[in-house]
Amino acid sequence: MSSDENNYDQRSIDAHKKHGGKIRIESKMPLDTREDLSVAYTPGVAEPCRQINNDNSKAYDYTWKKNTVAVVSDGSAVLGLGNIGPEASLPVMEGKCVLFKKFAGVDAVPVVLDTQDIDEMVTTIKHIARTYGGINLEDIGSPRCFEIERRLKDELSIPVMHDDQHGTAIVTLAGMINAMRVTGRNLNDLKVVINGSGAAGVAIVKLLQHVGVRETIMCDSRGTLYKGRGEMNSVKKEMAKITNRTRVKGSLGDALEDADVFIGVSVPDVLKKKMIKRMRKNPIIFAMANPIPEIMPAEAHEAKAGIVATGRSDFPNQINNVLAFPGLFRGALNARTSNFSYQMYVAAAYGIANCVEDPTPEEIIPSAFDKRVAKQVADIVEDVCEQNNSMTF
Amino acid sequence: MSSDENNYDQRSIDAHKKHGGKIRIESKMPLDTREDLSVAYTPGVAEPCRQINNDNSKAYDYTWKKNTVAVVSDGSAVLGLGNIGPEASLPVMEGKCVLFKKFAGVDAVPVVLDTQDIDEMVTTIKHIARTYGGINLEDIGSPRCFEIERRLKDELSIPVMHDDQHGTAIVTLAGMINAMRVTGRNLNDLKVVINGSGAAGVAIVKLLQHVGVRETIMCDSRGTLYKGRGEMNSVKKEMAKITNRTRVKGSLGDALEDADVFIGVSVPDVLKKKMIKRMRKNPIIFAMANPIPEIMPAEAHEAKAGIVATGRSDFPNQINNVLAFPGLFRGALNARTSNFSYQMYVAAAYGIANCVEDPTPEEIIPSAFDKRVAKQVADIVEDVCEQNNSMTF
Repeated sequence: MSSDENNYDQRSIDAHKKHGGKIRIESKMPLDTREDLSVAYTPGVAEPCRQINNDNSKAYDYTWKKNTVAVVSDGSAVLGLGNIGPEASLPVMEGKCVLFKKFAGVDAVPVVLDTQDIDEMVTTIKHIARTYGGINLEDIGSPRCFEIERRLKDELSIPVMHDDQHGTAIVTLAGMINAMRVTGRNLNDLKVVINGSGAAGVAIVKLLQHVGVRETIMCDSRGTLYKGRGEMNSVKKEMAKITNRTRVKGSLGDALEDADVFIGVSVPDVLKKKMIKRMRKNPIIFAMANPIPEIMPAEAHEAKAGIVATGRSDFPNQINNVLAFPGLFRGALNARTSNFSYQMYVAAAYGIANCVEDPTPEEIIPSAFDKRVAKQVADIVEDVCEQNNSMTF
Repeated sequence: MSSDENNYDQRSIDAHKKHGGKIRIESKMPLDTREDLSVAYTPGVAEPCRQINNDNSKAYDYTWKKNTVAVVSDGSAVLGLGNIGPEASLPVMEGKCVLFKKFAGVDAVPVVLDTQDIDEMVTTIKHIARTYGGINLEDIGSPRCFEIERRLKDELSIPVMHDDQHGTAIVTLAGMINAMRVTGRNLNDLKVVINGSGAAGVAIVKLLQHVGVRETIMCDSRGTLYKGRGEMNSVKKEMAKITNRTRVKGSLGDALEDADVFIGVSVPDVLKKKMIKRMRKNPIIFAMANPIPEIMPAEAHEAKAGIVATGRSDFPNQINNVLAFPGLFRGALNARTSNFSYQMYVAAAYGIANCVEDPTPEEIIPSAFDKRVAKQVADIVEDVCEQNNSMTF
């Protein structure tokens, strides 16, 4: 689908121009009198400063920090647009901030970086991080995104998450959980093929393995990843070690032989009907390339797919990150946790999945506009954090 | 005055805790339907991204950039509190953001830095600067603040200003302009003594010299600065070269012999009545140490001061930066200028001064709550920018 079918291009330009971007700052305290000014600013403001100076954790009580997330990008892998740099990625980052506010009441602010060097990015983010309660990394190219996230998680004491990885993985797992219920399968028995070995593909494999999926095969444009294959970067080599235990060599079609699940985080039109026919009966197809999926749902159903999900809002079962990140950060901020964990990601996935009371093949995932989702995710994530804090062994 | 006289300490703590800081993010676009989402976010958002990628200046049309200022601090010289670090300075930075919004409709966001190294600060700010339309440096210790501002002004293409320097200097100049009118003096003939050689003192001297003041003497706690004096850092050495042409050596009192103006940006109670008596008739006293001035107004008047100004709201003639920075940045953002200049600072000072229609010794400066000021400053600054853009020689 061209984005122009509904004239969204021009309507978006008009709206962005009219409003001058999408977010603004508002004051939470009155400032109409000298008294107001003396309380919000000098001389009164000195006292919260003093107390935070004595105990940095009080910044969560007296400043915006407890409710604030920075949406940080270098603009290197933006939507389907590629490496468009900092300024051009701002509209996407502002959009993310709007979603944070809308769905979880989080005050998110964009920070776009004028560098794509890993060391410089890590250092810059570390130097500004005390301003915020959390860091949402966004649209940073693979494989740089992995090292950047890992180093920031190690070195910062606020939660850091690369949403293109974990947001996608969480919502995918949520869909898988309900797909299991609908088709009577177990995660433990599945054979799952992931097409696309970028940020999302890697995170999906890791999260599925975390919850017990044993048989996974990753493919890139050259076919399956396996130990010893040529032309793999360091991340693909790593993934080849922990996936494809039987060392299947060959094409995507070969990988799909007797598979239960196809997960596409790749490019349009690469999944063919004849490939689906090589899969086990009643196969599960998550074709999430945007805006044009790996296969259109109608075609997938013609090939007897049992369940089909895409990234699009105009088909059933939309796998959309907005189901995960607002509630996930809301829960983390509420708990004042210092980091995200896989346990929190899994909890979030169940929180999303449980919003569908009676899943069917046409409804394994709640609507992106279902307001219950962020609240449910936030609560379950906060709960996990608190349980972990009270663990003594 | 203790800040507790009106119980501002506890009231400020209560208010900060109740509201959870002072600023929040709001969405400027509706986001209630799938259509809304398609315009504000995917797929529509791709088009503003594409257009900005082709022409970075369009970020001013389609993003928050055109209305956004980062209030950046390392927390090294905060109010009277000293070097309290990033988190503890957040309440002051948020306060600044609230003032930006209140007086000029500017969307300002705090950024506190977890480093006080000059190179690291400059690099960090450069890496995040494309996010914003301007940078307000705040509460950065002297002499580091001078190099940081100079390098950022050289290397960035958005306006950068250290408010503790230029905001203070502009409002001081505004007060001086009306003090000239009230006392029938000329800037060109004055002898001005500046007590305090930190960020504000240096900026005041430079701005006064820019508008024609020829005779200035700076003092620090050891007395006058003069060429060849010992115990001076590089900035004081520089200032000794461009001030004190007659090489007056001695105390503050000695410097004040036959002076027209005392400007204090120093510490409480250092100006004595007997020193004022050494000054020319009808002297002008700006005693701006906060919260306790260099001399209390009543005492200064006992010594026959002609005009007395302080930094406090409970005496006449409050010299307060809030008269300058909101309108100054508003004008710079409106003009989309790439830098601040002394010409803009002078224009801002006249903008402020002109808001007092009929200046008297008790009213040389408008009230900090006079809403006309920011608008007038913004208009005159924008005007200067546009004139400069149209200059062809």
